[in-house]
Amino acid sequence: MAPDENGYVQPVVNVPALTRLLDGEHAIVRDRVRGALIEHSGLLAEADELSKDAYRDRVLEVVRATAEDGLTSYHVPKEYGGSGDFGAAVAAFETTAFGDLSALVKTGVQFGLFGGAILNLGTQPHHDAWLADMAAARLLGCFAMTETGHGSNVQELGTTATYDATTQEFIISTPDDSARKDYIGNAARHAELATVFAQLIVTSPDGQPQNHGVHCLVVPIRAKGKVLPGVRIEDCGPKMGLNGVDNGRIWFDDVRVPRTNLLNRFADVSEDGVYSSEIENPNRRFFTMLGTLVMGRVCVGGAGISASKVALTIATRYATKRRQFSTSEGEPEQLLLDYGMHQRRLFPLLARTYALHFAQDSLRQRFDDVFSGRADDERTRRGLESRAAGIKALGTWHATRTIQECREACGGAGYLAANRFTALKADTDVFTTFEGDNHVLLQLVAKGLLTDYSSEFSDMDQFELVKFVAGMAVEQVVERTMAHKLLERLKDVLPGGDDSWDQEAGLLSPAYQLSMLRFREEHMLAGVAKRLKRGIDSGMPSGEVFSRVQDHVIAVANAHVERLILDAFVGRFAAMPQGDNRVALGLLCDLFALTTIEADRAWFMEHNRLTTNRSKAISREINDLCRKLRPIAVDLVDAFGIPEELLRSEALLR
Amino acid sequence: MAPDENGYVQPVVNVPALTRLLDGEHAIVRDRVRGALIEHSGLLAEADELSKDAYRDRVLEVVRATAEDGLTSYHVPKEYGGSGDFGAAVAAFETTAFGDLSALVKTGVQFGLFGGAILNLGTQPHHDAWLADMAAARLLGCFAMTETGHGSNVQELGTTATYDATTQEFIISTPDDSARKDYIGNAARHAELATVFAQLIVTSPDGQPQNHGVHCLVVPIRAKGKVLPGVRIEDCGPKMGLNGVDNGRIWFDDVRVPRTNLLNRFADVSEDGVYSSEIENPNRRFFTMLGTLVMGRVCVGGAGISASKVALTIATRYATKRRQFSTSEGEPEQLLLDYGMHQRRLFPLLARTYALHFAQDSLRQRFDDVFSGRADDERTRRGLESRAAGIKALGTWHATRTIQECREACGGAGYLAANRFTALKADTDVFTTFEGDNHVLLQLVAKGLLTDYSSEFSDMDQFELVKFVAGMAVEQVVERTMAHKLLERLKDVLPGGDDSWDQEAGLLSPAYQLSMLRFREEHMLAGVAKRLKRGIDSGMPSGEVFSRVQDHVIAVANAHVERLILDAFVGRFAAMPQGDNRVALGLLCDLFALTTIEADRAWFMEHNRLTTNRSKAISREINDLCRKLRPIAVDLVDAFGIPEELLRSEALLR
Repeated sequence: MAPDENGYVQPVVNVPALTRLLDGEHAIVRDRVRGALIEHSGLLAEADELSKDAYRDRVLEVVRATAEDGLTSYHVPKEYGGSGDFGAAVAAFETTAFGDLSALVKTGVQFGLFGGAILNLGTQPHHDAWLADMAAARLLGCFAMTETGHGSNVQELGTTATYDATTQEFIISTPDDSARKDYIGNAARHAELATVFAQLIVTSPDGQPQNHGVHCLVVPIRAKGKVLPGVRIEDCGPKMGLNGVDNGRIWFDDVRVPRTNLLNRFADVSEDGVYSSEIENPNRRFFTMLGTLVMGRVCVGGAGISASKVALTIATRYATKRRQFSTSEGEPEQLLLDYGMHQRRLFPLLARTYALHFAQDSLRQRFDDVFSGRADDERTRRGLESRAAGIKALGTWHATRTIQECREACGGAGYLAANRFTALKADTDVFTTFEGDNHVLLQLVAKGLLTDYSSEFSDMDQFELVKFVAGMAVEQVVERTMAHKLLERLKDVLPGGDDSWDQEAGLLSPAYQLSMLRFREEHMLAGVAKRLKRGIDSGMPSGEVFSRVQDHVIAVANAHVERLILDAFVGRFAAMPQGDNRVALGLLCDLFALTTIEADRAWFMEHNRLTTNRSKAISREINDLCRKLRPIAVDLVDAFGIPEELLRSEALLR
Repeated sequence: MAPDENGYVQPVVNVPALTRLLDGEHAIVRDRVRGALIEHSGLLAEADELSKDAYRDRVLEVVRATAEDGLTSYHVPKEYGGSGDFGAAVAAFETTAFGDLSALVKTGVQFGLFGGAILNLGTQPHHDAWLADMAAARLLGCFAMTETGHGSNVQELGTTATYDATTQEFIISTPDDSARKDYIGNAARHAELATVFAQLIVTSPDGQPQNHGVHCLVVPIRAKGKVLPGVRIEDCGPKMGLNGVDNGRIWFDDVRVPRTNLLNRFADVSEDGVYSSEIENPNRRFFTMLGTLVMGRVCVGGAGISASKVALTIATRYATKRRQFSTSEGEPEQLLLDYGMHQRRLFPLLARTYALHFAQDSLRQRFDDVFSGRADDERTRRGLESRAAGIKALGTWHATRTIQECREACGGAGYLAANRFTALKADTDVFTTFEGDNHVLLQLVAKGLLTDYSSEFSDMDQFELVKFVAGMAVEQVVERTMAHKLLERLKDVLPGGDDSWDQEAGLLSPAYQLSMLRFREEHMLAGVAKRLKRGIDSGMPSGEVFSRVQDHVIAVANAHVERLILDAFVGRFAAMPQGDNRVALGLLCDLFALTTIEADRAWFMEHNRLTTNRSKAISREINDLCRKLRPIAVDLVDAFGIPEELLRSEALLR
């Protein structure tokens, strides 16, 4: 094509090449999963027709068939039937999220949570006993952590596991209804074993009963389909979505399990009742154990991004079929996607989806580095957990927002179950809550930033954090976050010296865009530190201080994660060979960066990093980017590679 | 209570008095509806259990019982069993929205849309034939306007009604699948009659067939439960929500109805085939007919506000029961509502719900004024339609957002169907689409502003609008909108003269808050006019001009409606007698005003109406308002007067 007056040449997207880029190193795994999804695509329609129990059993069938194809246990060591490939496990899960999400969540519960607890918290005897059967879905299990009274604050769970040295057994008990296990997937109908999180109470041979904090034990709850004595299970009943998953509540009435059912990788109790652990500090021990379960968060964030891709594919293609209102007498009506507002609704979400995709790529690689043992020091693990929390929060909120906007953009047709929005919306809704409430996760991210994952990091709750930060000089906090180094770097990459970098660089310069997001992150972080310190210095109780600064804490975490996302996108863009696909991704990267700045442009103006004229220029540039994306929008969603059979929107897309 | 250091005394809310204020003139009607909702509250749980058909029939039972109690046809004249009270009809509908929303929508379809079409588009013979049976729910009907191919652009419907003078009948036809009637409530199972919108084609005795545009005719579609010959009906199948309503598709294969079935209030066809109408311009005729159906929009907006109240009641009360994380060792865990972030999530939504409530009050009164005939000139009607469109759009988007935030604020418990969020979220989702897509409605609002409801107003489509505006001087547009008068008024009420009014007034001054929203509205409106004019002057096609300015068009409509809402709230606040309830409402009014300004503070800074310091001060003030609202938050939701039986959240609220 010929360049326009500014030298811009509209790119022609090579869709298969872009799909290969997106699929990345796990392309073969992803294509195998796509094949399985096509094979089972009937499930999407059956979900509307079947009774609750029939749908649950059908989902189990599909999960078992997928397990038999070897697509659900890449993370399990080869000797137990897996591949020992953590990255592939996440990639498979991400791709599975293009299909029925009950099947996805059932997969996650069985192989990721239940299997992951045995794999990561257990030792070889546990692996030998259960992993192979788990991986083949011959042995079904559930992950019994959350209780009615405690979801976010897992350290305060009420269930107890009390050691009885006379029989060398643990006695599992539910002291009251608030300590019943709740929302437990696989519990209401299918699970035979549960990995139960409980306060471990041990009376050493010569002492008082002592609570060693939350540990995980394997507890049989069902045999041959019948609930075992001492165990009571109740169905959680109909839910907003994910009704193919049998969530249930579990009460334990002094259920006894052998001492060896304690998953003892990090702590053990000897036959005569002596508790031992290599990690002395109970808080750190707890967070270390939880940290091994990070795969769940990595997976859910990725699933949210995948669900957004499905919604955007349908809404974008619909908008190139559907016409409404003609521009002048006798003309055909105008396509929805030719309306500026429609582009403004969909394209920034498309750009953010691409950005999150690349951030998820980078997260998955880090996760694989740590769990493969290639990079497994304490600090790297904490960094991984923080990233996983951040991408999970932003990825799942993005899904909620994107699916809603896409549904509305498809009008009444989007409301029919025969298209996919009904299930997408209902099923993904809880993604913002499970595997960690998003607000709580962002606090975790902020805690990491404020303490720079110091050795004290794992030991602090949010209120101790307040005191910790208040005890430091503000400069120290900022120093810890490497703000100075970043500011130095800015001077190098940007023209005009320290004070004017944000005025002179081009809006489409990645260095400018990144610098803006870095500046925001650092400035907000220093601000939080100051406010926490000022609060404590003025004699306010730490709870009150935290409450008052909490929105600022969440904001800094959000700013940090958005900067990481842009880093990932810019990095991938920079590494691409010249060509049309690079031009296309450049448009998306610019659109993501500028809409992110635009959304918070008030903050940048308040902090003198954006003039009012430049702010308006950003909005104009965004509209220009939208117009450039219009001709290639369908290619950009097609590149996600979602099988046609899964779009289930024949009527909508014809 | 004793005043704090700033003289502020924490108010003690008189909940019954506040409920009386909110219930207003229709308190008796509302209480009667509350009684009926309590009687039928079992429906909320049955919705989870029953099969699709059983749920639909059960909803019909409830609708019939409510009709027998006289609660669904206040708008119907007394001689046909109603009360001739349009305001009461809306108030009843708003209150009904506290309960099962399938029953609500079925009520709206039967009595509001179907009954409303006969009432407002028909004449006495039609009223005599059908209204009494309709009002008693002995005769069930549907409102067959929307087609698969045309929802927003009703003028381009494909269904035809061709007059056959030889038999004095109209022949109703569906020319192709895109012209089938779609999403029609009551059609799939229960309706016997349909009010069908179709292109009216008449061949006058001495001429060619001529299309007179869309008109409405009554067409029998079912008798004794059986679909009539020539009519084909298909079930729309499962939907995201509202599954107690039997939505269907209808095809007409040359179905004949008597000439007198044309609802002929605004146009008629004589026996020998002469078309006549008092309204000569076909566009204006069409918009006049549509305008008589405005009750649907008034009702849906109100229903969205009511649904928000239900969600906020549950989430606020939950947050005063649920604890998570203790502030220090040995202390009980902290209540969710004591977290600053939780207040920031819920209270601005609560304030906006109150604001919308008062705006809806004002809209309902205007609607009643017009339909009772007390104020029924053309200009007032157009103003009413614009307000109804605006409040419908903002009220239903507010519902989507509020219900989502409240669900997330209740965590996993919010995801169970046994609490109310599942149904609330799924059922209200389509509110943003039906009775007019929200974006299209806001364009209608903007069109009214840009033309000041001039006589040409009704004749223009969006592209003619572009040319119309381009043909005026910008000053003329602004003049038309009374911007000058407003700016004059600002000078009077605010200190400091023209240039500094926004710098010196107190943030909590209603005059300041209103002035800010007025300034935004007028400035944006002038901006849109300039951009439209510039586009046309530069030779761009009007479709392209409209597309480029569309986001700005939507923004000005939003700014206008938010200003109307604040006007309504400030007006009601000002009229209240001194006392604690007034203080409490004042906090909410300030919070609504300041969060509205805060959300668009970038715009105000870009247009030099907000300094960065003042912008930050607004955010601090908002946090302060949230802390003041914390102790009275439960009282403020209890004042909505939602019967306990409808909260259906025993587990969540105990």
